[in-house]
Amino acid sequence: MIEHMEFELSKEYLEAFTQAVDAKEADFVTSTLNGVNPADISEVIRELDAEQTKFVIDLLDVEVGAEIIVNLEEDRQSLFLENFTADELATFVDQMDSDDGVDVINELPIEKREEVIASVENEEKAGYILDLLRYEEDVAGGLMAKEMIRANLNWTIQQCIEEIRKQAENVEKIYSVYVVDNEGKLLGRVSLKKIILSEPDALVADIYEEDIVSVGTHADEEEVALTMQKYDLEALPVVNVKGKLVGRITIDDAMDVITEQAEEDRQMMTGISGDVEEDDTVWVLSKARLPWLVIGLVGGLLGAKFISLFEKDIALIPAMAFFIPLITATGGNVGIQSSSIVVQGLASYNAFEDTLLKKMLKVFFVAVVNGIILALIVFGIVIFSTSDQAMAGTVAIALFSVVLLASFMGTVTPLALDKIGINPAMASGPFITTANDLLGLTVYFMVAHFLYGF
Amino acid sequence: MIEHMEFELSKEYLEAFTQAVDAKEADFVTSTLNGVNPADISEVIRELDAEQTKFVIDLLDVEVGAEIIVNLEEDRQSLFLENFTADELATFVDQMDSDDGVDVINELPIEKREEVIASVENEEKAGYILDLLRYEEDVAGGLMAKEMIRANLNWTIQQCIEEIRKQAENVEKIYSVYVVDNEGKLLGRVSLKKIILSEPDALVADIYEEDIVSVGTHADEEEVALTMQKYDLEALPVVNVKGKLVGRITIDDAMDVITEQAEEDRQMMTGISGDVEEDDTVWVLSKARLPWLVIGLVGGLLGAKFISLFEKDIALIPAMAFFIPLITATGGNVGIQSSSIVVQGLASYNAFEDTLLKKMLKVFFVAVVNGIILALIVFGIVIFSTSDQAMAGTVAIALFSVVLLASFMGTVTPLALDKIGINPAMASGPFITTANDLLGLTVYFMVAHFLYGF
Repeated sequence: MIEHMEFELSKEYLEAFTQAVDAKEADFVTSTLNGVNPADISEVIRELDAEQTKFVIDLLDVEVGAEIIVNLEEDRQSLFLENFTADELATFVDQMDSDDGVDVINELPIEKREEVIASVENEEKAGYILDLLRYEEDVAGGLMAKEMIRANLNWTIQQCIEEIRKQAENVEKIYSVYVVDNEGKLLGRVSLKKIILSEPDALVADIYEEDIVSVGTHADEEEVALTMQKYDLEALPVVNVKGKLVGRITIDDAMDVITEQAEEDRQMMTGISGDVEEDDTVWVLSKARLPWLVIGLVGGLLGAKFISLFEKDIALIPAMAFFIPLITATGGNVGIQSSSIVVQGLASYNAFEDTLLKKMLKVFFVAVVNGIILALIVFGIVIFSTSDQAMAGTVAIALFSVVLLASFMGTVTPLALDKIGINPAMASGPFITTANDLLGLTVYFMVAHFLYGF
Repeated sequence: MIEHMEFELSKEYLEAFTQAVDAKEADFVTSTLNGVNPADISEVIRELDAEQTKFVIDLLDVEVGAEIIVNLEEDRQSLFLENFTADELATFVDQMDSDDGVDVINELPIEKREEVIASVENEEKAGYILDLLRYEEDVAGGLMAKEMIRANLNWTIQQCIEEIRKQAENVEKIYSVYVVDNEGKLLGRVSLKKIILSEPDALVADIYEEDIVSVGTHADEEEVALTMQKYDLEALPVVNVKGKLVGRITIDDAMDVITEQAEEDRQMMTGISGDVEEDDTVWVLSKARLPWLVIGLVGGLLGAKFISLFEKDIALIPAMAFFIPLITATGGNVGIQSSSIVVQGLASYNAFEDTLLKKMLKVFFVAVVNGIILALIVFGIVIFSTSDQAMAGTVAIALFSVVLLASFMGTVTPLALDKIGINPAMASGPFITTANDLLGLTVYFMVAHFLYGF
């Protein structure tokens, strides 16, 4: 139970709120949203369109408005931001941390970006944003904020406290003070707890923690998240190639990386393109799902074409048709299992990874074990129920081959995708299932053709 | 790039290290691990067996050993802990936060649990652990630690600082001081930043932040994670039904919940039972994958049995067999897409959720749109390539029906599973794909039977 705001975030409130917005009743909006956590207001905003959102944000404090704009879903941000002038946007950006500011600016058309940055009053912030624009969004440099507290190695604790006071407004969340040398090179950190417990005249050099984990600006966002998770960090300093402290990533951003990654993987695996949700429109949902269904359809038609080559065989022995779903389904299941284990291995950082050869050998052995067991089960059941040795042999051999092939495909495909920079989770999606279907059918009918001696 | 320790975490080091452990060369172990971050030592430990692990942990500082034990993978913890006596374990638990301590104790056999708790020296910690044992592992009470800083509303900042000093050793990470009244009811918080910037004689009552988000002890772990993510919190206070502050959840635990959930979902979706990884043995991997493959096999055999009912039809018109994979594959794809969107909706907290009826209607319309488009494509292609109207009609109608049915199944199944307390992600797994296969075949052959007028 989230203790506060429970009442206001109700369906009834939303209805009253939307009506008030449409009737431009500013009083209702400001009075009911007064003091409400911006994260909660963002949930209400989610239900509004661009124009309604603009109306509400204009009525709120600029800090609250800034936070709401940051919280807008990425796919709606650029549309919603069109309603604001460059000057208005600059006022909001002024209130954002530089990492959020640059994310918002990245959603704007190029011309407007420069206008907004030029209009940001806080010159330091404008400089920060210009600096951050240089980085890709999915590396440490694109995640970090420039706002943080840094202390020189030669300072006293009192000087650190002065610096915190000076920066208090700029840096919302402070966990540590980062210690740098005269060249700005990151040396370590002093936690706020230690600052509180130390004498004001204590020297940073005497008490700082030297063992500090940092990442380079070009570290991949997943590496950032894994590092923060491994070392249980709430903030991670970012250094450039020379070891100079250039920014700080906070845990909320790492957490977003993890959930977005999981979401993207799921969509890849289920063949849904784009970031759709249950409450999108029928048309958006259809459109997101159709491409992969059509690919599956094309695969199915190719399969049909392929099976038709064996039309005469099927006319003679219709039982051959019976086991088509068994073969394709097993191929699909094995392929997805294999690729899933590989994808998981790729996602988790492991210092002592097996070589590719060792991996492939293990995949091969697992496939052999499972293939033999499944083939034996099927052989037994088919022999028992039909006494057709040729059929039982065909299905068993085909099944065994399919397990082997699908394991191989399921292992190689994500590795290959990863090598060329495509999300390997795609290898667990409909495309590969379809490919495995075709492969399985080929094996099945070839084996049958051979065993029956057509 | 993780800046420090890069060299030691190499394959060569691991080899030398394992040899040293087997040869009981204590010197090599202590000298190379001296000063190394426990999270990194844990990665080395991952590669060792229970006995080797015991040898290494015994050589390390007890705090480091405690952290390594906490970091052990859950499925190996209970096995590894067998090698330690209750007294030894108590020494380690003494060094852990109460939430980690209770997790470790939960892995022990019941008799040993009491022994360990009785041997924990710090009586306050023992009490904490006894208290935490009452909660299920997957609710807020099971995630929280009892260690935190609480301040009475009537205190001064100086008194808060004294309390922090007193608790400094017990509470490793301090983000805020929680403000309570005389009955222990949670009123708000004061951030460490504010404590540093306030005068020592300032009153907590004057400066504390009243707008605080908390959860109840029985809140589900996913709700905890979503709440922390929504409000960007690094720590979340937990209150009992009377509003009394009873514990605190830190962000690292919420992050673990999110990754474990994503992992579990993926395994459900791919039909792998248990928490297996690429580097498990061939046998473990086979065993984790076989159950679902066998279920798929049984489904495939049922499918074979079912198709065999139409043996005569197939002998007359072998072309009926051609489209079996098309029908089953499309059913599978549509089913997985639908369930995936539902599962995603269930996982994300939404205050303004659509009613079930509205959801189902939307699913229905999406299915109709996609079904019609796919059916038209297939009808066109089959007519064009075979001129067989009955066949084109059969495949198109069957495909349309399969899309509708699979959408329905894919939507209802996860909702039903969720209702009865089973992870809804299972609805995207092989079990449902198999059910959809059978359903699709039924529709296909019934339609064919009818249209061809057998």
